Amino acid sequence: LFSQVAVAPRAKLEVTKNADKLKVADPNAAIQRYACTGCGVHMYGRIENTKHPFYGFDFVHTELSKDQGWSAPEFAAFVSSIIESGTPPDQMGAVRARLKELHLEPYDCLSPALMDAVATHIAKASGVLKA
Amino acid sequence: LFSQVAVAPRAKLEVTKNADKLKVADPNAAIQRYACTGCGVHMYGRIENTKHPFYGFDFVHTELSKDQGWSAPEFAAFVSSIIESGTPPDQMGAVRARLKELHLEPYDCLSPALMDAVATHIAKASGVLKA
Repeated sequence: LFSQVAVAPRAKLEVTKNADKLKVADPNAAIQRYACTGCGVHMYGRIENTKHPFYGFDFVHTELSKDQGWSAPEFAAFVSSIIESGTPPDQMGAVRARLKELHLEPYDCLSPALMDAVATHIAKASGVLKA
Repeated sequence: LFSQVAVAPRAKLEVTKNADKLKVADPNAAIQRYACTGCGVHMYGRIENTKHPFYGFDFVHTELSKDQGWSAPEFAAFVSSIIESGTPPDQMGAVRARLKELHLEPYDCLSPALMDAVATHIAKASGVLKA
């Protein structure tokens, strides 16, 4: 139901193998997801819009990796959106309860810290807060 | 910082006085907010798009009413967005703590029940869930 996403500075991300197989899934999306043209798996997402609140960060899909050492997941984001891909609404109570059990606080947007960061970015861009 | 909004079926809402003073603040917004042209206060919001997840509900600003009997507020929505109107980001911890103290769970979008309702509406519109 969920993917697992880690955040890394874009300067620290390097594709070491099979870069020629990667293609942007949707060039019009804010976050350009590089997917494997062979198997369809999404590997990472990159933001090219320098005005985006999260510009400078890449989003790495770690859920399919067999390697150790990835950062542990800290919260669950956009939880209600799994209904849009077919989860029956009456199962959402159980889904949120299980996420809490796993110490992954469920949010229907991003976490408060990230939502505050987005709002701060918007406030600075509009001049409401000092840049 | 926050307004207080109650929800009512549109058929149950009637403007009994000074209807001629009300004007839609932004005709292009999804929720058309009827504001007083005399003092600028927003009285209620109405959705005219029949495909909107909350079509059929009006949103009544109850925070300025002196009358008793309005429904009590149940949660705080779009909390992070107050940064966009100038709240310093370092005060958000205190704001969320105070809302919890008042038993108004703070959310940066809507409550889980409403977010699930929106996602269910989208899933039915797209055909992912049976309408």
